[in-house]
Amino acid sequence: MVVKTKKLYIYECALRRFADILMEAKSQSIMLESYAMNGGDGPYSYAQNSLYQRGLMEAAKGMINEEIAMKLDIQELSLAASEPIRIADLGCSCGPNTILAVQHIIDALMRKFQSHSTPEFQVFFNDHVSNDFNSLFASLSVLGKQYYAASAPGSFHGRLFPKATVHFVYSSYALNWLSKVPERVVDKTDPAWNQGRIHYTGAPKEVLEAYSDQYAKDIDSFLQARVKELAPGGLMALLIPAVPDVITDPQITIGSEFKLVGSCLMDMAKLGMVSEAKVDTFNLPIYFTYPKELRQIIEENGCFSIERMEVLNIPKQHIVMPDLRQRMLYIRAILEPLIKNHFGNEIIDQLFEIYSRKLSESSIFLNPECQKTTAIFLLLKPI
Amino acid sequence: MVVKTKKLYIYECALRRFADILMEAKSQSIMLESYAMNGGDGPYSYAQNSLYQRGLMEAAKGMINEEIAMKLDIQELSLAASEPIRIADLGCSCGPNTILAVQHIIDALMRKFQSHSTPEFQVFFNDHVSNDFNSLFASLSVLGKQYYAASAPGSFHGRLFPKATVHFVYSSYALNWLSKVPERVVDKTDPAWNQGRIHYTGAPKEVLEAYSDQYAKDIDSFLQARVKELAPGGLMALLIPAVPDVITDPQITIGSEFKLVGSCLMDMAKLGMVSEAKVDTFNLPIYFTYPKELRQIIEENGCFSIERMEVLNIPKQHIVMPDLRQRMLYIRAILEPLIKNHFGNEIIDQLFEIYSRKLSESSIFLNPECQKTTAIFLLLKPI
Repeated sequence: MVVKTKKLYIYECALRRFADILMEAKSQSIMLESYAMNGGDGPYSYAQNSLYQRGLMEAAKGMINEEIAMKLDIQELSLAASEPIRIADLGCSCGPNTILAVQHIIDALMRKFQSHSTPEFQVFFNDHVSNDFNSLFASLSVLGKQYYAASAPGSFHGRLFPKATVHFVYSSYALNWLSKVPERVVDKTDPAWNQGRIHYTGAPKEVLEAYSDQYAKDIDSFLQARVKELAPGGLMALLIPAVPDVITDPQITIGSEFKLVGSCLMDMAKLGMVSEAKVDTFNLPIYFTYPKELRQIIEENGCFSIERMEVLNIPKQHIVMPDLRQRMLYIRAILEPLIKNHFGNEIIDQLFEIYSRKLSESSIFLNPECQKTTAIFLLLKPI
Repeated sequence: MVVKTKKLYIYECALRRFADILMEAKSQSIMLESYAMNGGDGPYSYAQNSLYQRGLMEAAKGMINEEIAMKLDIQELSLAASEPIRIADLGCSCGPNTILAVQHIIDALMRKFQSHSTPEFQVFFNDHVSNDFNSLFASLSVLGKQYYAASAPGSFHGRLFPKATVHFVYSSYALNWLSKVPERVVDKTDPAWNQGRIHYTGAPKEVLEAYSDQYAKDIDSFLQARVKELAPGGLMALLIPAVPDVITDPQITIGSEFKLVGSCLMDMAKLGMVSEAKVDTFNLPIYFTYPKELRQIIEENGCFSIERMEVLNIPKQHIVMPDLRQRMLYIRAILEPLIKNHFGNEIIDQLFEIYSRKLSESSIFLNPECQKTTAIFLLLKPI
């Protein structure tokens, strides 16, 4: 009995330690964990604040239809008897967008297979391990869906699926996330040290270079992984938020808004509400490419041919929500998990109050004409 | 990067230690959602209270090895070039058991494929939508696993996968869960109305019949779904908690413990702490079959041949935890989500206090010799 009690004690301690280490690792070293969007469906959730992404998707819908109709070669797919078509949405998050996007893709595939016997569909929803898959699957379970749903958690910068098992890869508004913050920007001895800022926007060119290098590496890993996973004849449609090749004053991008959040944090640091060192070590692992750069990365990678590359003409109301609160909520839904993770829960409300005030004082942020963030539609085929 | 590697190493060691200590401590406990098990890793979690199932799994490990070695026919599997082997754990829950079980299966398959080129593996973890998949995937993400992991949430009483895409199905301690409470037992006009009880144990034979009918229907649906999903040459290994064909006084089963929980609820009703009507409408969707019955259901279903059926000889210490608190926690981990869902959060602590008292007053509940709950190992092959 004594032995047993002792064992139980050891066992309990070990479990507690396990939980602690898990929490610590989650919050500190496994950075990827903290990239998941705000879960659930509350007022700050990603599900409720992702209309911009929905706009992108709508704009891309027609192109996906066309590309599936024209470029998908059923013969080339050479599905084995009874093999299902497997679709993956990479960086799906937990909101309704992924469900709608997948439905569009399946509708397009069904039209394509009209004259053949229609295969079954299996859909893999991918995002980071900490993504709110439960919300996503709760939504799915009430829909009369035409496919078998599965989740495949993990980083899409690495392998997610066995080789040659996926037929259509889709990713929307996810490839702007880097696998990690570039190391150089948190290295005090490096010219790319990003002191007093949380993003490369408005930073010296060395910071931009560090981000840009990381992005090129990440897209390269992404493409290397996908080319192995795609079955012969498979296709990949990507919607990637981006900026134009050239931006002039007083044009802004979503990066300008991150810069503004950074300046709010510095204001708070000056008031002693957060430590300046904390701001210096906080950087957003987010990068917005531009068409020329993205094309070059894909061509240098060499795994895929670019079947279509188009800068989306997104209706202005999808880019800028002139309503101040909506605009604030949009940025908050993206950044809150990262900020909470680094600074703790306490500063969030105040930070976004300051942010709202600064937004309202600016003449450009709420002016749709100034906003130049766009998105690139890409249709890639393994070479 | 160095920090990350170091952290991951510590994390991995902790997890291994966690598993080791779990294995060593010869204590037990359990299970499932509104059947999903208690998530997380707190003191009432399934992860912390599922050693009984671990015991079952250990007992079945050797048999799974033998069956994969003898019955799995690589030629018959006829994997297409580069096709992965797909494994599904149905009713996996969120604890370490599913990770260990899957590893055993993969080890056995790797031995089988030794002289051939080893395929890739893809593992689907299935449980109800509300299962704590995040905990499961957080554990998985730190292990150097040899497979691509995915979750396939939903009820295993229906279809989960496209046809002919799964090669090895495993399910442990999950097929005792019914798809729903039999309708007759909550119908006041039916002779099977289960007034004042929460389970069929100790109830009139009509109640048992209603449960038994539901079980037969559920197993039939389960087998119908699986036979479509299994690829040619695929196998299914099931570990099903059960009772002997004959039980005599003063033998008890886990059902007797559910009966005891029911009597505690009735005590609380008499004291006005819960309404009697609430107790009358609460029934556990759990059924323990016996070997004769299970064989008959499978034979009548006709989709599978029984390649092996064995009542497991589980070491007694795996069945009964003579420690009162542990025994209580074991039952609590199984029932808490169901009870909370029906009665609310408030009554839980008191209910299990009363339960502990009743357990301690009984001469049979903590006596390992009286406990007759067992488990059936089944190896099935599609006909």
